Amino acid sequence: MTEITLGMVGGGQGAFIGAVHRIAARLDGRFRLVAGALSSDPDRAAASAAELRIERSYTDWAEMARAEAARPDGIRAVAIVTPNNLHFGPAKAFLEAGIHVICDKPMTVTLEEALELREIAAKSDALFILTHTYAGYPMLREARRLVAEGALGKLRMAQVEYVQDWLAEPVSGKQADWRADPKQAGTGAIGDIGTHAAHLARFVSGLPIEQVAAEMHTFVEGRVVDDNIHVMMRMGAGVRGMLWASQVAPGHDNDLRLRVIGEKATVDWCHDRAEELRFTRLGEAPQILTRGGPGFQGQARVPGGHPEGYLEAFASIYADAADAIEAGALPEGLPGVEEGVQGLRFIEACLASDADDGRWTALKD
Amino acid sequence: MTEITLGMVGGGQGAFIGAVHRIAARLDGRFRLVAGALSSDPDRAAASAAELRIERSYTDWAEMARAEAARPDGIRAVAIVTPNNLHFGPAKAFLEAGIHVICDKPMTVTLEEALELREIAAKSDALFILTHTYAGYPMLREARRLVAEGALGKLRMAQVEYVQDWLAEPVSGKQADWRADPKQAGTGAIGDIGTHAAHLARFVSGLPIEQVAAEMHTFVEGRVVDDNIHVMMRMGAGVRGMLWASQVAPGHDNDLRLRVIGEKATVDWCHDRAEELRFTRLGEAPQILTRGGPGFQGQARVPGGHPEGYLEAFASIYADAADAIEAGALPEGLPGVEEGVQGLRFIEACLASDADDGRWTALKD
Amino acid sequence: MTEITLGMVGGGQGAFIGAVHRIAARLDGRFRLVAGALSSDPDRAAASAAELRIERSYTDWAEMARAEAARPDGIRAVAIVTPNNLHFGPAKAFLEAGIHVICDKPMTVTLEEALELREIAAKSDALFILTHTYAGYPMLREARRLVAEGALGKLRMAQVEYVQDWLAEPVSGKQADWRADPKQAGTGAIGDIGTHAAHLARFVSGLPIEQVAAEMHTFVEGRVVDDNIHVMMRMGAGVRGMLWASQVAPGHDNDLRLRVIGEKATVDWCHDRAEELRFTRLGEAPQILTRGGPGFQGQARVPGGHPEGYLEAFASIYADAADAIEAGALPEGLPGVEEGVQGLRFIEACLASDADDGRWTALKD
Amino acid sequence: MTEITLGMVGGGQGAFIGAVHRIAARLDGRFRLVAGALSSDPDRAAASAAELRIERSYTDWAEMARAEAARPDGIRAVAIVTPNNLHFGPAKAFLEAGIHVICDKPMTVTLEEALELREIAAKSDALFILTHTYAGYPMLREARRLVAEGALGKLRMAQVEYVQDWLAEPVSGKQADWRADPKQAGTGAIGDIGTHAAHLARFVSGLPIEQVAAEMHTFVEGRVVDDNIHVMMRMGAGVRGMLWASQVAPGHDNDLRLRVIGEKATVDWCHDRAEELRFTRLGEAPQILTRGGPGFQGQARVPGGHPEGYLEAFASIYADAADAIEAGALPEGLPGVEEGVQGLRFIEACLASDADDGRWTALKD
Repeated sequence: MTEITLGMVGGGQGAFIGAVHRIAARLDGRFRLVAGALSSDPDRAAASAAELRIERSYTDWAEMARAEAARPDGIRAVAIVTPNNLHFGPAKAFLEAGIHVICDKPMTVTLEEALELREIAAKSDALFILTHTYAGYPMLREARRLVAEGALGKLRMAQVEYVQDWLAEPVSGKQADWRADPKQAGTGAIGDIGTHAAHLARFVSGLPIEQVAAEMHTFVEGRVVDDNIHVMMRMGAGVRGMLWASQVAPGHDNDLRLRVIGEKATVDWCHDRAEELRFTRLGEAPQILTRGGPGFQGQARVPGGHPEGYLEAFASIYADAADAIEAGALPEGLPGVEEGVQGLRFIEACLASDADDGRWTALKD
Repeated sequence: MTEITLGMVGGGQGAFIGAVHRIAARLDGRFRLVAGALSSDPDRAAASAAELRIERSYTDWAEMARAEAARPDGIRAVAIVTPNNLHFGPAKAFLEAGIHVICDKPMTVTLEEALELREIAAKSDALFILTHTYAGYPMLREARRLVAEGALGKLRMAQVEYVQDWLAEPVSGKQADWRADPKQAGTGAIGDIGTHAAHLARFVSGLPIEQVAAEMHTFVEGRVVDDNIHVMMRMGAGVRGMLWASQVAPGHDNDLRLRVIGEKATVDWCHDRAEELRFTRLGEAPQILTRGGPGFQGQARVPGGHPEGYLEAFASIYADAADAIEAGALPEGLPGVEEGVQGLRFIEACLASDADDGRWTALKD
Repeated sequence: MTEITLGMVGGGQGAFIGAVHRIAARLDGRFRLVAGALSSDPDRAAASAAELRIERSYTDWAEMARAEAARPDGIRAVAIVTPNNLHFGPAKAFLEAGIHVICDKPMTVTLEEALELREIAAKSDALFILTHTYAGYPMLREARRLVAEGALGKLRMAQVEYVQDWLAEPVSGKQADWRADPKQAGTGAIGDIGTHAAHLARFVSGLPIEQVAAEMHTFVEGRVVDDNIHVMMRMGAGVRGMLWASQVAPGHDNDLRLRVIGEKATVDWCHDRAEELRFTRLGEAPQILTRGGPGFQGQARVPGGHPEGYLEAFASIYADAADAIEAGALPEGLPGVEEGVQGLRFIEACLASDADDGRWTALKD
Repeated sequence: MTEITLGMVGGGQGAFIGAVHRIAARLDGRFRLVAGALSSDPDRAAASAAELRIERSYTDWAEMARAEAARPDGIRAVAIVTPNNLHFGPAKAFLEAGIHVICDKPMTVTLEEALELREIAAKSDALFILTHTYAGYPMLREARRLVAEGALGKLRMAQVEYVQDWLAEPVSGKQADWRADPKQAGTGAIGDIGTHAAHLARFVSGLPIEQVAAEMHTFVEGRVVDDNIHVMMRMGAGVRGMLWASQVAPGHDNDLRLRVIGEKATVDWCHDRAEELRFTRLGEAPQILTRGGPGFQGQARVPGGHPEGYLEAFASIYADAADAIEAGALPEGLPGVEEGVQGLRFIEACLASDADDGRWTALKD
């Protein structure tokens, strides 16, 4: 296999998620980072590129899209790792330039942008991949497979939570500031982590979220965006669910848990035991499924008992992206533009329900 | 200390909770069971009494209340362990006869009965105790104490769930049948276990549930009562919460979990690790508090590391009841008639919200 | 069933294990405590008996044995809960008086006494029961059953540990003092908890400990008895094992863990998750067996998910003792005089190996 | 930072640990793999090199050492990932050629070779690094720091186990075959995983293993090398310990656990919860330390709650190796030739004790 040349928009010095994308792209040896518009500040862009030994440094992503598309050795794919409000513009530019886009979530700030991007992607030969990291965890993929195979029987419930505490007090700093600014982030916890939780429920159950009854809340005084959301969900096929996303709950560093419950069995997964999937058939003893266990059908870099983690999950998204680019189409399960649209629909429906005394509100275009 | 003479209504052969009440009453040596109307069936009543070596056997609780009140050596207290619809009548009869009542939950089937019973109790010299078992667990009492002391700071959230799977399929038998019959049980999961969950949130937080947005659901075909409920809660002091109670979720035998989250710290308790309380101050490492730990201020029969469980928790409710009877008043934290009323208010508000498109609905008399 | 009349030797005010025996005897309603030589101090004996509402109080156990044997309504069984050096005398006296003995462990201080007591028991019509509490835990009984049924295949290893920290520093007080006095306790950690661990390995594996290579150690300055022991074991049928018992290991309150490993499967049990047995067949996913699970064949007071603990395990030993007394013989698995002898053999062989540069030393009479 | 050019000996198609070394070398972007003697089979060497896009492929490591040393752009370091009996030769050749060596464990097959290699390394300008992976786990480094700082007080015990089940039955295949062949592997479980366990005890405690009493055992019929070892240890400063390594224990995929116990506190770490360190001060509640916690002083790629695992630990060894190569000396804690010697001493002393009826046997040169 040849390495796919990669560019990056955002991710300059001091950025968190950019460095994660770079490790993820590098881990399986499928991508080589050769170009970047790492910062809109020219000095920081240049310094960041030098530190990372990136050959072609830009300060403007629009120019980068044009220039790379024009080069015979231009990048084949670009990673967009900017704040939420700077996803749409670069994604549009690179898709229109025929360069594959690997974009952080949420896809855009508004549903209108999301729908527009979906149209742009439909017209482009380039692919759009959304880095819902958790879709890269082997045991969540296994959970999805078990559900799809019917091991759980008819589904009943999906209970999901994504809980953090790093914004439990007023926080400032590069990571916190843009997330708390409605202009850059759009929303707060719901966009930052609620969309991960919603995606996860959909990813494993294979069902859409059809209606929500939601309460958005802001606990920290002075904060403008939401920092805690409670949601009841009606999903496809009569499935009921609850979703909790919070960034203000002491004692939770990055705690994501999903239970999907069917008539015949339940799958239960927690981020802090990411290598295990608790699988219980009704009337049988709970089983601890792992990558090393007999039924596992996914892929892995190291044997069971040698824990893989967050970076490996992220790298699996990148490895799938590489496969997608080689194949010209997204493989089953890899999040793309439709998942981005679903994420924005979820956000908008929660906002609407919250504004309407908690009533059940349908997700719609 | 002298033993308190005890009677029992319900709890004949084949009953589950009656046997539990008897062990709980006996475990600390505070009660002696001497009388019973164990069954309305005379033969079963007599056989049950003989098996249990109970001196005075009745077939009618009304007669038992009259007869025991009239005897100089009549029972001082009675345990009511009948199906839900048979709580109100006996409770009324014994309270009016001046005999202390220890009653299983939910207190009654309707809020009207609950309010009436509260008035009866207010006029009686006898006490009314409601066996919300979980209020007997040492680490939940410790959690309540930590909250009351301010160790969590201003509270933010209460997340509670009580999840079982024993009704995941159509079930018949003595335990299941009355619970599935609206005439005997009133409601399904919400009364049977939802009230425990709601009580627990109130017990530890010390705050009332003020409003709910709820979805009641029945998953098992042919079942008339609810078997799964999802609730969003607004509690006192601006606290937000979620409550999930289910009897149809494979992989959950009797899983009760409560998290109460404050600005400064969180307490996290699960029934399957009942001897531990996870306590995390913001910015500090999580601590595993136990009965054997340095800060523990509760009471225990055996040292930390020698696990106490469900029967001990139940016995602690009975020990508190014995203390209450000796003192003539309920000690702080022991559930009584007001908790019974709150439980029914919770049920009625959930039903109302569910019927009204999930809107926020206030709990009221 | 009629209640069995019970006496108690030791267990006066301030004693720990006496109170535990009393709860255990009472919990299932099989015994009634009517006589006691609770203390050799007359005032304390009388005060303790009054507090416990015990009808017949003695200050001398020898006199108690004589007097009770002579009464037509004399006790049928006696619980011996004195320090180790006061087990032999009372056990002998009551057995010779034809009164069943329920005795705390270790059975005696020396192997000579143990062997003598075995002879006395053989000649007596009365039964001798040794309260190895852990043999009362449902999931350990389940483990024993699985091994006996061959579910593990040919056994390979037994790894057991019993670790505490309450003697990590020089400690004084009623509980600590006699345990640290070689005259009263004989040995330190090895007798107090090492014998529990050794019994557990034998109980579940069904195999004798044949040879040991041991290191006895005392970490706390000024202590005369051992407080930490490391043992390698050769058991019957070629099984290898390790045993660790410590009372000086911070972070361990009463942590007992046993793994029995066979060619085909492993059982793994920890005291702090006493209601679970981790059972893993080679090549299959680990299963969490519980009392509520489908294969469970033991007995229980409450359904799975309602945790039973230490007192219930202790009560199950008493319930078995009651069955034994009614039947005239010990049921399978209930520890008796032979287990007491095995415990002393284990202690003596460890002492001998330790004194002989760690060499493998056989357990012998 | 510039990338360090790297070669590899071993690790051709079908090899497990070679692929792990390559990911580890690549993950942090510190190394670039440019040369290899991936297999002694010319076709497989060439095919492997092509698949990995390695520029310079050799079939003979001796030639590779000469040729690379002669090139101006020759590799600066080499990773040796061959079976145990092929560590010594290449290590000697590359060290003598002035090329840094990163070698898998155990360092050699015999103590004689280990001592000779130590002399060779002492004379060379090149560094020797031994990939004891577990020294790369952040929470084990934290444990080591806590011990070194005195947070545990005077140490008492080290209990360590490394348990697998993949050789529980007779196994064949590339990975199993050479490990079961005494000519290639030297010993069985003791060399393959026992040395990891022994290193870990030394790494965290900071103390040497001075004496052992050991039992080596082979459970699987027909196997020539040991597959289970039980060891009692006397370490420096009066510390006592136990070590268990097994490859034949069903229910254990790759379970490594270490407890280091001091007068004041205990650290407890398990591989299957690698991101947590349980730290308990005597008389205080157990704390769960993590990378995200307040006291953490190590380095990490992603915040706490985003699990790092085995590959990240391995990559940290490589990152330290890169630092060492830039600095010209090994940083504190990075395993080198002395750890290799200690590993062989441990093996030889265990063999000697086992042959001498389990007697305490000193580790010596």
